[in-house]
Amino acid sequence: MEKKSIGVGLMGFGVIGSQVARVLLDRQEHISEQAGCAVVLRKIKVIEPDLGTPKAKAVDSELFTTDEDDFFNTPDMDIVIELIGGVNPALSYHERAIKSGKHIVTANKELIAKHGSELMELAKLHNVSISYEAAVGGGIPLIAPLQKDLVANNIDGIYAIINGTTNYIITRMSSEDIDYPEALSEAQNLGYAEANPTKDIEGIDAAYKLAIMASLTMEIKIIPDDIFCEGISKLESRDFRYASELGYAIKLLAIARHSNGFVEVHVYPAFVPGDSFLAKVDGVYNAVLVEGDLVGKVTFWGEGAGAKPTSSAVVANVIQAAKKIACGDTSYNYWKIKPGKRVKPMPEIINRYYIRMTINDKPGALAGIAGVFGDCGISISTALQKEDNIEEKSAEIVIMTHPAVEEAMRAALNELNNLAVVKEINNFIRVEE
Amino acid sequence: MEKKSIGVGLMGFGVIGSQVARVLLDRQEHISEQAGCAVVLRKIKVIEPDLGTPKAKAVDSELFTTDEDDFFNTPDMDIVIELIGGVNPALSYHERAIKSGKHIVTANKELIAKHGSELMELAKLHNVSISYEAAVGGGIPLIAPLQKDLVANNIDGIYAIINGTTNYIITRMSSEDIDYPEALSEAQNLGYAEANPTKDIEGIDAAYKLAIMASLTMEIKIIPDDIFCEGISKLESRDFRYASELGYAIKLLAIARHSNGFVEVHVYPAFVPGDSFLAKVDGVYNAVLVEGDLVGKVTFWGEGAGAKPTSSAVVANVIQAAKKIACGDTSYNYWKIKPGKRVKPMPEIINRYYIRMTINDKPGALAGIAGVFGDCGISISTALQKEDNIEEKSAEIVIMTHPAVEEAMRAALNELNNLAVVKEINNFIRVEE
Repeated sequence: MEKKSIGVGLMGFGVIGSQVARVLLDRQEHISEQAGCAVVLRKIKVIEPDLGTPKAKAVDSELFTTDEDDFFNTPDMDIVIELIGGVNPALSYHERAIKSGKHIVTANKELIAKHGSELMELAKLHNVSISYEAAVGGGIPLIAPLQKDLVANNIDGIYAIINGTTNYIITRMSSEDIDYPEALSEAQNLGYAEANPTKDIEGIDAAYKLAIMASLTMEIKIIPDDIFCEGISKLESRDFRYASELGYAIKLLAIARHSNGFVEVHVYPAFVPGDSFLAKVDGVYNAVLVEGDLVGKVTFWGEGAGAKPTSSAVVANVIQAAKKIACGDTSYNYWKIKPGKRVKPMPEIINRYYIRMTINDKPGALAGIAGVFGDCGISISTALQKEDNIEEKSAEIVIMTHPAVEEAMRAALNELNNLAVVKEINNFIRVEE
Repeated sequence: MEKKSIGVGLMGFGVIGSQVARVLLDRQEHISEQAGCAVVLRKIKVIEPDLGTPKAKAVDSELFTTDEDDFFNTPDMDIVIELIGGVNPALSYHERAIKSGKHIVTANKELIAKHGSELMELAKLHNVSISYEAAVGGGIPLIAPLQKDLVANNIDGIYAIINGTTNYIITRMSSEDIDYPEALSEAQNLGYAEANPTKDIEGIDAAYKLAIMASLTMEIKIIPDDIFCEGISKLESRDFRYASELGYAIKLLAIARHSNGFVEVHVYPAFVPGDSFLAKVDGVYNAVLVEGDLVGKVTFWGEGAGAKPTSSAVVANVIQAAKKIACGDTSYNYWKIKPGKRVKPMPEIINRYYIRMTINDKPGALAGIAGVFGDCGISISTALQKEDNIEEKSAEIVIMTHPAVEEAMRAALNELNNLAVVKEINNFIRVEE
């Protein structure tokens, strides 16, 4: 029952959508050869027809439609590529496509993170596939390796630098010794950060991607709301200086790992050892370190965004989907969610911590501070007292702790805040070894 | 036409074979769930039955056979895993398996590098698949990403640190400032280098892996004999010191790239920029940088050898093969070799070069040397004269050139050798930017 030609419909014709259309049209022969059958772009759904732009002129105008029904009623359309982004109206488009037996290829991280599990249930029911390689890490092969190539492993943990905007800002703060506002505005000027950068800066974008990777590999349904999320806006250039002095780099990490029967999922800035691989991932690059019980550590590194890299992942998904449809292979990859697994509550996680505070420089100040840690059952591994400000009679203290429970750490921070000698707790950052 | 159970036969029960058997047996439920059908180990071919070892005791002794016919006549054996290594007798086993309609999974880099193309022709004829993820980079997903996830791209180049033994030795020479013999014997003591390390040290092992990646991605049949191959044994610790001073690291690189209608394939030690990703790949780790015209640069990093990582790749291949067999998917990945592409002859390649030589320290020495480069049409970008040995009246000169044709460079080296002022050309190393 071989199909000789596979039809594709595209929803969205922005920067990424138009790039995908271009690859599908320009490389049709190559794509069809790889898929083992003709792969034909049949329809493009746009919000408004803007046929005068160069990107639209490169496409046969007959392909465009603004009408949803017209799009979904296109004959011989086996695969729908959704590149609109966001939950609405994308969710309803996904449902409509699935219910009419069409396979889905998407780069929509928010939708898959929030509704992936239900969409896969629906897809299973209607015997179609959902592919979302481009939703995580742009063109870097990540979903397929996790789905297929590492599938003999139990995945112990995922440690990801998965947001290029924040990694660019962090890299600049670290290498140029500039503060957050300056680095952010530099990133905005270069087009690496949006005018409203909240989703990137606060780690929400990273949490979407983490939710997808965790749901895929850890047999638990993780939605963004399950993920403890802390952004980079409170980092200061002096934190990077101390990190470097102590042998670390600071990175915004998205972490998913098994931990005593629980699953930990969080996004936060973390100290990582200076000689580690993740410490060396600079600029807008992404890297995802996967720990499997057979493979050990493997890392995938590359550009995590951009129209061309994203089109690489989208079109690869289209080719694989077309290949399967053409030869009647219905063994699709859905998330394998099992009951009984739970997310570890944040107060129970165990980490080492870095704390930086400003104190009144009096005799016995450090002793009082150290006493608070002791009372909370937290051991100190390193303490630095520095930079006396003689006029203000203040000093800066940096503490690195041994592993401690987050709850105890928060109690200690509360007590420190009440200590007369402590003027301000400037920052506290978790440490990943 | 769904098959409910897929039978597997295993050839080879050494370190890797026994590990694979263990994973297949211990994780049978997990593997079968992933494959969507039962995956059952039916037979293990060994040279001599050594049923007393712990690894053999962990396996039902009924599974072992020493007899080739007995092995191949095992009923319901759909997949043969070949973990013997080398060309003979593995080649004949592959042919026999294929001709009897069995799918192949192998970690045999030498066989696939030397005979992959013919074996795939044969496999095509008999409608079976050949999977060889474990042949390159141990457990690092490489073959599947190149075969599937990056398939929308034109692959422009592959730059690989793909031999853990040499990378360990190089890392030690560089970081500890020790010379080659000491680093080699250290690697041997740690089990990272074999007693006879020739295949690793001379780049032959890396060439096997490069031949496979190039044949897979560049539409040309590359066998190891096509690959210019230079090992690491002539490197000295002072080369690493100069490299560092000039802002570079030295790595044994396996390179395949398109170049003006030709394909370049070579393995040699090369200067790579000190801030590049490949410069940071240390110890026994492997990393493969792939450049695609859509995806840009992506890099895959991890442990390139070892029983557990290798078993991760082998079992993933078994699961994917079983899945396809079970649902009748016959869209296998063979190399797409096209006529007309040729390997670029080594004298025609263009590189920058590093040359280190010992000279008689006389007035005009450097001028004479620079003159030779000029006569051969090679521009010098940097020249360092150092370390006068007053007793021997000698000095060391290091030259970095601008891009030059290899043939011109070799002519220059010949002329330099004939120059009275040159006592010895100590090393010459290519530079990859």
